[in-house]
Amino acid sequence: MSAMVLVVQKFGGTSLADAEKIHRAARRAIRAKLSGQQVVLVVSAMGRTTDDLVKLAQAVCCDPPKRELDMLLTTGEQVSIALMAMAIDAAGHEAISLTAGQLGLVTDSAHTRSRIQRISRDRIDAELAAGKIVIVAGFQGADQAGEITTLGRGASDTTATALAAVLGAKCCEIYTDVDGVYSADPRLVPGARKIDEINYDTMLEMAATGATVMHSRAIEFGKKFQVPIYVRSSMTDAEGTLITAATPGMEAIVVRGVTLREDLAVVAMNGVPNTPGAAARIFSEVAKSNILIDDIVQNLYDGGRVANIGFSTNSSESAEAMAICRRLGKQLGVDGVEIDEGVSKVSAVGLGMRTHSGIAATMFEALAKEKINIDNISTSEIVISCIVRREDGPRALRCLHSAFELDEPREDDIA
Amino acid sequence: MSAMVLVVQKFGGTSLADAEKIHRAARRAIRAKLSGQQVVLVVSAMGRTTDDLVKLAQAVCCDPPKRELDMLLTTGEQVSIALMAMAIDAAGHEAISLTAGQLGLVTDSAHTRSRIQRISRDRIDAELAAGKIVIVAGFQGADQAGEITTLGRGASDTTATALAAVLGAKCCEIYTDVDGVYSADPRLVPGARKIDEINYDTMLEMAATGATVMHSRAIEFGKKFQVPIYVRSSMTDAEGTLITAATPGMEAIVVRGVTLREDLAVVAMNGVPNTPGAAARIFSEVAKSNILIDDIVQNLYDGGRVANIGFSTNSSESAEAMAICRRLGKQLGVDGVEIDEGVSKVSAVGLGMRTHSGIAATMFEALAKEKINIDNISTSEIVISCIVRREDGPRALRCLHSAFELDEPREDDIA
Repeated sequence: MSAMVLVVQKFGGTSLADAEKIHRAARRAIRAKLSGQQVVLVVSAMGRTTDDLVKLAQAVCCDPPKRELDMLLTTGEQVSIALMAMAIDAAGHEAISLTAGQLGLVTDSAHTRSRIQRISRDRIDAELAAGKIVIVAGFQGADQAGEITTLGRGASDTTATALAAVLGAKCCEIYTDVDGVYSADPRLVPGARKIDEINYDTMLEMAATGATVMHSRAIEFGKKFQVPIYVRSSMTDAEGTLITAATPGMEAIVVRGVTLREDLAVVAMNGVPNTPGAAARIFSEVAKSNILIDDIVQNLYDGGRVANIGFSTNSSESAEAMAICRRLGKQLGVDGVEIDEGVSKVSAVGLGMRTHSGIAATMFEALAKEKINIDNISTSEIVISCIVRREDGPRALRCLHSAFELDEPREDDIA
Repeated sequence: MSAMVLVVQKFGGTSLADAEKIHRAARRAIRAKLSGQQVVLVVSAMGRTTDDLVKLAQAVCCDPPKRELDMLLTTGEQVSIALMAMAIDAAGHEAISLTAGQLGLVTDSAHTRSRIQRISRDRIDAELAAGKIVIVAGFQGADQAGEITTLGRGASDTTATALAAVLGAKCCEIYTDVDGVYSADPRLVPGARKIDEINYDTMLEMAATGATVMHSRAIEFGKKFQVPIYVRSSMTDAEGTLITAATPGMEAIVVRGVTLREDLAVVAMNGVPNTPGAAARIFSEVAKSNILIDDIVQNLYDGGRVANIGFSTNSSESAEAMAICRRLGKQLGVDGVEIDEGVSKVSAVGLGMRTHSGIAATMFEALAKEKINIDNISTSEIVISCIVRREDGPRALRCLHSAFELDEPREDDIA
């Protein structure tokens, strides 16, 4: 093992969309190398390559075997690692590209949604010791038998933070097309402010409730192995956002950001007899079909004998979810199954939601003042979410951003 | 080992250019499977994918490292195997795609021009025994250390015939965009006729002198392991051309085809002192720079004391070849170094050129009658080649095609 400081830099598809952008990313890696650090790059597929490959697969087969889908999609990252190595070579520095199989990033065999089992240091350490910049294909893995797997869409972030953890990197830098994490989506909220520092849990909830800047699993890896993560723009030298364990002045801050998740549908089963296992039966049936559930809300009524169970899911999966619930509804003898399509979820995220009283009230009042109807409500330790009509979503986001005074500069932002 | 009959089918890029063509190729493989044969498919990259990837590399780096070029280009075949497996799955049959690494096609480590060292049967045998159609990525290999290599441009044919040899296939079918091997390029010679059967050596020389329908190395494999090769159209059920060891009525046939190779340049070193090793020195220098030499012609004069040494090479490499020869020319004290660009080579190919007298005479007379000047001439056991002006090439080809009566139907064609 080397005593040198190591940094993992990850570049997403928009930061690699053409030759010029690849050179720009290469220069950033070289700069880190010249400053005396060892550098491991993780790259995604160029631009919209993965979407194009998915379209190609769909043109050939409406339901492609998952193994072959992985075989197909991993070519996108393989193209990127080769081109990145060429760009660094063209700039007169030594680099080597590695596929997941060559590197020894071993996953289970669940094609299209594999989990990392272990990452070997041997090859990377040898190449770093030889003075090379190591370029790793994100998103992909190889199972025990050498079959090619993938970690799920957007999982190059996961490759990067997992590598940073295994290699003991001083930090993991995520280069993207925005210059950090914002208090709300700047395209929807003009007064949105960049957050300088945020803790893992808050970032996790922001990602889960609609902030697309980073993949949740990657943040989980960062948290688990305490890897500081910087989210930065690939186009500027601005500082970006540091995702870490502790943030300064944490007690004073409650709501760090507001998020919007669109294109949801809420499926409601009303009058479910409150017998043990009813909810378990419903959600195990839904899970079997691989439908992703967002939030679940259950209320009891009629003296606790009957429940209304509702859950939100992506619009694209709502028809299938509805069909499953109708079938189960008959078996369980429920009053009715309803679907509410065209809804969005607006959330306020921050540590200490429950201990700071009045946060929920502020949220509901702000929405009421704007005459925005609230459908389901769900809360956790650090999130309050409200389902609203889709057309109200952006307006709801803006009013909450103001209500929580996220437009104002704050002490810790200046520090 | 199974006692079933096995066939290797290879589909080139033009036969896989879109989803419909991939389905067509898949149907052909399925038909062979349903007829009771085991089927191994070898596929190239779709359409012009490889050229597009080379352009992408050149946009990033003017002289890309060969290892990274292999990393990049092999993605083209990986896309094809995945899509082909999906197409067969969509048609309700079982298939599995394999990269060279997964299959165990081991090469040396000479990136961009590797040689096959061995091919493991284990994985293919297991998949065939499980009733699957096995789809193999052409062109690629993996060296002992797991590094990704390629066999050189157009080498998917080589993958196919090598696999057919190792697996003891009853034959190797090469599906392409023409319906067989012709007595001359039908685009240039309207009277060109499809050849029903041709022997390995004649086919080798035709490929080497300009027939682009099949890759020379693939024919060498076929010859070495006595694998019958069918060259057929992927768009029709026509019989195509069988390349094999023995052809009927062989004694009667001399010239089987005429070929044209364009875009050549001839470099001539005049007055080279005829000392031992002079030619060796010239061609080892040229070889070091990886310039591909076509034919070499040397004449002695001045009582054997001085030689003129000429060679033909691709136009694209002529400037570099010229520079090397100028430098060597000074060291060796030659009279002068000249280059003749914009030339083509027209060849007549067939067994027994030397034993059948008059072939060369017929050739030179036919060209003279058309007032076509001949520059260099070279001959071998089964080829006579003449360098002509580029603009005379197609006309030379047509007049030779007539002179050798290749327009006429022949006995063995009817058989």
